[in-house]
Amino acid sequence: MFDELHEECGVFGCYHIPDAASMTYYGLHSLQHRGQEASGIAAEHDGEITVLKGRGLTVDVFRKPELASLEGVNAIGHVRYSTAGGAEAANIQPIVSHSSRLGDVAVAHNGQIVNEKELRRELEEKGAIFQGTSDSEVILHLIRMEEGTLEERVKKAAARLEGAFAVLVEGEGKLFAFRDTHGLRPLSTARFQDGWMVSSETCAFEVMGIYDSETVPAGGFCTFEDGILRRSSYREADAPRVCAMEYIYFARPDSVIEDVNVHKFRKETGRILATGDDVQADVVIGVPDSSLSAAIGYSEASGLPFETGLVKNRYVGRTFIQPTQEMRDRGVRMKLSPVKEAVEGKSVIMIDDSIVRGTTSRRIVRLLREAGAREIHVRIASPVLKLPCFYGVDISTKEELIGHRMTVEEIREYLEADSLRFMTPEQLRFAAGTAGLCTACFDGSYCTDLYSYSEVLSN
Amino acid sequence: MFDELHEECGVFGCYHIPDAASMTYYGLHSLQHRGQEASGIAAEHDGEITVLKGRGLTVDVFRKPELASLEGVNAIGHVRYSTAGGAEAANIQPIVSHSSRLGDVAVAHNGQIVNEKELRRELEEKGAIFQGTSDSEVILHLIRMEEGTLEERVKKAAARLEGAFAVLVEGEGKLFAFRDTHGLRPLSTARFQDGWMVSSETCAFEVMGIYDSETVPAGGFCTFEDGILRRSSYREADAPRVCAMEYIYFARPDSVIEDVNVHKFRKETGRILATGDDVQADVVIGVPDSSLSAAIGYSEASGLPFETGLVKNRYVGRTFIQPTQEMRDRGVRMKLSPVKEAVEGKSVIMIDDSIVRGTTSRRIVRLLREAGAREIHVRIASPVLKLPCFYGVDISTKEELIGHRMTVEEIREYLEADSLRFMTPEQLRFAAGTAGLCTACFDGSYCTDLYSYSEVLSN
Amino acid sequence: MFDELHEECGVFGCYHIPDAASMTYYGLHSLQHRGQEASGIAAEHDGEITVLKGRGLTVDVFRKPELASLEGVNAIGHVRYSTAGGAEAANIQPIVSHSSRLGDVAVAHNGQIVNEKELRRELEEKGAIFQGTSDSEVILHLIRMEEGTLEERVKKAAARLEGAFAVLVEGEGKLFAFRDTHGLRPLSTARFQDGWMVSSETCAFEVMGIYDSETVPAGGFCTFEDGILRRSSYREADAPRVCAMEYIYFARPDSVIEDVNVHKFRKETGRILATGDDVQADVVIGVPDSSLSAAIGYSEASGLPFETGLVKNRYVGRTFIQPTQEMRDRGVRMKLSPVKEAVEGKSVIMIDDSIVRGTTSRRIVRLLREAGAREIHVRIASPVLKLPCFYGVDISTKEELIGHRMTVEEIREYLEADSLRFMTPEQLRFAAGTAGLCTACFDGSYCTDLYSYSEVLSN
Amino acid sequence: MFDELHEECGVFGCYHIPDAASMTYYGLHSLQHRGQEASGIAAEHDGEITVLKGRGLTVDVFRKPELASLEGVNAIGHVRYSTAGGAEAANIQPIVSHSSRLGDVAVAHNGQIVNEKELRRELEEKGAIFQGTSDSEVILHLIRMEEGTLEERVKKAAARLEGAFAVLVEGEGKLFAFRDTHGLRPLSTARFQDGWMVSSETCAFEVMGIYDSETVPAGGFCTFEDGILRRSSYREADAPRVCAMEYIYFARPDSVIEDVNVHKFRKETGRILATGDDVQADVVIGVPDSSLSAAIGYSEASGLPFETGLVKNRYVGRTFIQPTQEMRDRGVRMKLSPVKEAVEGKSVIMIDDSIVRGTTSRRIVRLLREAGAREIHVRIASPVLKLPCFYGVDISTKEELIGHRMTVEEIREYLEADSLRFMTPEQLRFAAGTAGLCTACFDGSYCTDLYSYSEVLSN
Repeated sequence: MFDELHEECGVFGCYHIPDAASMTYYGLHSLQHRGQEASGIAAEHDGEITVLKGRGLTVDVFRKPELASLEGVNAIGHVRYSTAGGAEAANIQPIVSHSSRLGDVAVAHNGQIVNEKELRRELEEKGAIFQGTSDSEVILHLIRMEEGTLEERVKKAAARLEGAFAVLVEGEGKLFAFRDTHGLRPLSTARFQDGWMVSSETCAFEVMGIYDSETVPAGGFCTFEDGILRRSSYREADAPRVCAMEYIYFARPDSVIEDVNVHKFRKETGRILATGDDVQADVVIGVPDSSLSAAIGYSEASGLPFETGLVKNRYVGRTFIQPTQEMRDRGVRMKLSPVKEAVEGKSVIMIDDSIVRGTTSRRIVRLLREAGAREIHVRIASPVLKLPCFYGVDISTKEELIGHRMTVEEIREYLEADSLRFMTPEQLRFAAGTAGLCTACFDGSYCTDLYSYSEVLSN
Repeated sequence: MFDELHEECGVFGCYHIPDAASMTYYGLHSLQHRGQEASGIAAEHDGEITVLKGRGLTVDVFRKPELASLEGVNAIGHVRYSTAGGAEAANIQPIVSHSSRLGDVAVAHNGQIVNEKELRRELEEKGAIFQGTSDSEVILHLIRMEEGTLEERVKKAAARLEGAFAVLVEGEGKLFAFRDTHGLRPLSTARFQDGWMVSSETCAFEVMGIYDSETVPAGGFCTFEDGILRRSSYREADAPRVCAMEYIYFARPDSVIEDVNVHKFRKETGRILATGDDVQADVVIGVPDSSLSAAIGYSEASGLPFETGLVKNRYVGRTFIQPTQEMRDRGVRMKLSPVKEAVEGKSVIMIDDSIVRGTTSRRIVRLLREAGAREIHVRIASPVLKLPCFYGVDISTKEELIGHRMTVEEIREYLEADSLRFMTPEQLRFAAGTAGLCTACFDGSYCTDLYSYSEVLSN
Repeated sequence: MFDELHEECGVFGCYHIPDAASMTYYGLHSLQHRGQEASGIAAEHDGEITVLKGRGLTVDVFRKPELASLEGVNAIGHVRYSTAGGAEAANIQPIVSHSSRLGDVAVAHNGQIVNEKELRRELEEKGAIFQGTSDSEVILHLIRMEEGTLEERVKKAAARLEGAFAVLVEGEGKLFAFRDTHGLRPLSTARFQDGWMVSSETCAFEVMGIYDSETVPAGGFCTFEDGILRRSSYREADAPRVCAMEYIYFARPDSVIEDVNVHKFRKETGRILATGDDVQADVVIGVPDSSLSAAIGYSEASGLPFETGLVKNRYVGRTFIQPTQEMRDRGVRMKLSPVKEAVEGKSVIMIDDSIVRGTTSRRIVRLLREAGAREIHVRIASPVLKLPCFYGVDISTKEELIGHRMTVEEIREYLEADSLRFMTPEQLRFAAGTAGLCTACFDGSYCTDLYSYSEVLSN
Repeated sequence: MFDELHEECGVFGCYHIPDAASMTYYGLHSLQHRGQEASGIAAEHDGEITVLKGRGLTVDVFRKPELASLEGVNAIGHVRYSTAGGAEAANIQPIVSHSSRLGDVAVAHNGQIVNEKELRRELEEKGAIFQGTSDSEVILHLIRMEEGTLEERVKKAAARLEGAFAVLVEGEGKLFAFRDTHGLRPLSTARFQDGWMVSSETCAFEVMGIYDSETVPAGGFCTFEDGILRRSSYREADAPRVCAMEYIYFARPDSVIEDVNVHKFRKETGRILATGDDVQADVVIGVPDSSLSAAIGYSEASGLPFETGLVKNRYVGRTFIQPTQEMRDRGVRMKLSPVKEAVEGKSVIMIDDSIVRGTTSRRIVRLLREAGAREIHVRIASPVLKLPCFYGVDISTKEELIGHRMTVEEIREYLEADSLRFMTPEQLRFAAGTAGLCTACFDGSYCTDLYSYSEVLSN
């Protein structure tokens, strides 16, 4: 799929850990693949929350003096991928509210709240004013409006949200973490020294040398208070359905979601694709980096050799200039190069994790052809993408999806591939084993009411 | 080996190609792995050379307006890795001289000239003054001192140089390219539209869609003039001996050096390591990115499954902060993470391309052990590094090399590995097939006189 | 006084003026002396408000593309001097609220609201949450809470504020401007083409070639709507008492406040100081830039020649390094130099506008002595500063004021001056002619209730 | 004249002074008015010279860590105004040469060498190559080519130069300073602690608290060696003729050149203008900052009151945007504002130091008229500028000078002034008292042969 889809965020928090801001910095660094546009950390010290945030990678936003100014043993952080419309500084997270009555509270959020418009309207009627368009601001207002202790208020606020989310809240020396009732967005906790860490993905724990972690269950609520973690739930949960795209593309291969390792899942998709595939081929290659695991799986199941057919340029930056139209057309060249020796004269199985618009896949097929591949058989380690996502993945309309507009044969023709196969949603679910999957973007089975977004589907 | 060794540079040039500076920009971008510290382009237009250069990646140094100011159909460019001592702005290449008598001349150079001190002394005696410590300045002065046409002068200058080098010279609407008589540093040419390109590595041609290229032979001299390329030699050449490290570590897998593809070479080293290796193991993993090809080769030859045992964080930047000593010790964690599912409870063959100081390898072994690997068998896809390099690789003393100070068994103990095996120099040469190799850093067979550097060895 | 005191802000707005953001940029540039820490512009287009703001000078925050993105014929802007505590990005103005119910509203504010803590508490109880500590956020919330049309709500909000302020509000295609009931902070309007401009100081109009302007009266309220300006008042006003420091130090000499030109006021203070001053002196000099007008006035009234006794270095930046303690002690040297020829061997009248801590004045006296001045008679063009200001000038405690701790004779001794004279508050009021002055920092006659700030005085 | 003319540089050096680089930083900061485009410092430590330089103000180029890296008790520095053509990094000074035979040598230079083309040709024939177009590179080559001790070689090199220059050379633990034989560019020395300082202007000494300094005489040569300063001359000198523009416009008023204080000189020009001026006027104003001294002199001599008629915006930066043509036309407004109260209804004497193109003066006259001035009598504190300068001031053609194309009456009409008077060259020389002046740009009496530049005059 290669740089066509974007996750919207990652969150990381520390509770009762010395120099919490620095540890959060490390955590965010490990979650950087979930968002490269902006980064922020809010640390609490004696009830006062200091926040630092800015555009750019975590390593660019924070330098030593900045980190040193963020005191305290509790901190929450956020990395963000921002779409054009929401790039305003007012939307960079965490978002903090200061109040002499309620104290400082900070919120960081990954996902999408589908009843956000409805909540915003209701809150405005009750007097809220919004300085940005971030869901976190809505959550802050909900927390403020409710009655009771901070924990009670955060829980009641959580119960008002519909959609996909993993949320961290910090205030009064406590930390709260909760996950949507469908378990769409991942969230895990881990013990660290005398405290805890909480993260969108477990890969951020491993950086600290922690390999034991627990998934926050769908609808689960974690209260970090008085030095301990108390687990509860804020609402009855449905059978968990993790966003399939987390496994397919977003998460790092070393992460574990709902007890299923991402690399293992991807290998399994490769194995399934290989099963019963009767194409005559010489080698299997994957589009780096996200499709390599599936390609290894395909290789193992088929017995065909795995090859490094494509090399990725590690220095591609956002400032890349493409002065001529010709160059723009062939922009993918700057990022991927075929290894001629690995594909020349061969019948190649090319594994890609998914197809969004199809333009990049088509260019890769042409690159391989140019490098001498005799036949190119494209195998997609997921089903046909047909529908938009309202749970935090930036597919906002059906029209942008080649799988919505074309049949598989038409797509094959467009890609100029010799053959093309996708997985079925059933096969995908099989690959996930014990973990339930949301496959709405493949088959329309959205697991929540869609509120105002349902219009998008009916168009 | 993972970020322990550094190549010193890469060069790229365009002759008779519209918007030569932009095309050179693309070329340098593909050579970025050869140097990330500084970047420069010198374009010639009507005999006038304009140069732009600065610290940082090519994409950061050049923006659209900068590129637009570099007019002309000829251009040469350079990417640089600079050691601490030579980071001065005066050393960023290309280096240009302006002269009303001889016109503008620009030089870009990759490698190391071993008789540089002797030449510098001689040139100073004849009146040269040096503003920096770059070899390119020496070459410029040699060109200026000689008699005859520019081509004659460049050729005579080339003949004075000893060592490892790939040099581009530009002036009078012409371009010249030459390579050392041992072929230590790679250099290739390719036809592009009505002109030519010349590059340290062929991967830069593929970005333009060119898969046909020719190696500049050892001692070869290319004159691009009057719209054509005229090949000659400036001195009798020895049997070519390409720097083994180019194949082992520096070059991109999709590059071809002396008709041998780098990926293929690396796979071959893996195969050789597997042959006769009687260790009982479950999986083969490679240290990303440079050791993956060798690991695939080992897997193919041994029949053991290839696995993604280590994941690399793609967002590691130079500004990374490591506030605690503990973190610094475990700095490798920020860059590499083990995939627990791939290694837990298993006996693992871990392929690395080479070992310099050993500190990183030791940390990786520990990471794998922490992630549950039962046994770790380290296989190095090259011989034991024992001696410094005077040909452009930044090993300047024997002392920094663990292979100089310890026996293989001592190294194994230091790495905390269950077993350890290296290749022999003979095996390495075998892997290179028809291409000759310089293996001086392994066995001391330096292919040139070492001049003042010979002292380093005798200490 | 020279860089010891700081004004807190300046505001500028455009109504019904093509390319309002660019014109606001010019206006802010002319108000830059009122705040150099941050700058922001909020432009309205079809009910939508876009805001751009950042740290730094107006010329650094806004470049052509940024300005071009701020469409619309209405805009308000702000320049800010931020104290250490409030330097957070969340406090940079204008502050904008987005609401589907009430539309977008932006607020920019200069001054200090003394009942801000009380209002904040009340608003929080009604459900407001604050993301920063800026008074503008309080004003936004007040506007939102009230009932009626936007104009009615802004007026009711204005009536709740106590203190010193000049406020601009923008929304629904309208602009509102109002000033505190004591007229402490200046605010003026001017016709420009088919629209209007409103500014903290009239110097910003002159940049546009407008020399006719009207003061917004104390308690006055301006409604810019339907292409016209409708003047009213939001509360009964007291006799106007402009902050004396505006005339003495902050405002530009070409500005007119309450029909009194600043330069003329300052000259008058010089004249008054000269009257009855029987010291024997040779020349009069002023500390640049703010004391030059008073020095000219003294020279005219006394008949003593005006001289350029001190030269200011125009390139002093905030990044200035002072490596040694000795240098730090003499930091004033980097900024001011005596003109030896103008003062050597002479008895010098040195005019300064005011004395805060006294450290800078003492250094200047030493500089002049060093340059050979025989006698130095310091004349301060204002009374002794004794008390803190709660109306927007950054004197927050009595203790920091040398005039609070010492008698005039003690100050003279500290300054090492041969004689020292201040003005009396009565003389200052006389200099202001028809304009009333707030002289609270000199004589304690605060013109508002001080709410929670009254504690500061009683300590 | 206001930002129309530019000096080309300033130099500052320290000999035998602890932390010489930091002290040089202070010195350059005081010379910043002589060049704001680039700044550099070269410090020597044990024979090794380290240079740091970059674009921008001294305070921006050097931060604490940079300064700390420049060790040693000797240092030379440079501030530069660079014309469009020469903005290349290769031209930023000081320029350093490294040589194993001759050691490191650094050169910094202010002025213009008129036989530079001839010298460059000669040096190229002898084998020199030039990486930039700076005169300093020529001087470095001359030094290298000569025979003898470093002092002898520097002296011989100095003797080859024709034109206007103040040059600092550093190497072998010594410092050398010399000035052209006509004394066109200023240069002074001063004792500081156990060492010496040398500077283009004496204002840089005063920052250190030093008021005693000595002019380096025309043709003078200073050798700082073995802890002492030895004065000599490198060639017979002519009667000194300091560039008149140094006194009129470039130098700071607190500087002393050839024993004449700049402020005093300027006051004298004002006095001379007043003598016999029979115009009926109410006030005298000066264009800030350079014409204020002359205005004070005119005021004293005429008895007319001196007024602050124009205020300068201190925050004008180079990034100022002028989006509309109308704004561009009125660009001067952003920088200068009239003080209406000071000029309204009055007959005004407006003193300006000189007129180059006349466009700015015309705009200022219009501003004053707009602000209500009844009559505007322009008095220029220098003669009519008619000819180009080849000695370091950026007037390169006659055509750009309004004084070359028009008579005084025509200029008056163009300026829309009620009357206009210039000084005569004789009057100017009279104002300089004992100091001789170069008045070539007024009357064509160039004090050197012009070599290739003589063509410019004959066109």
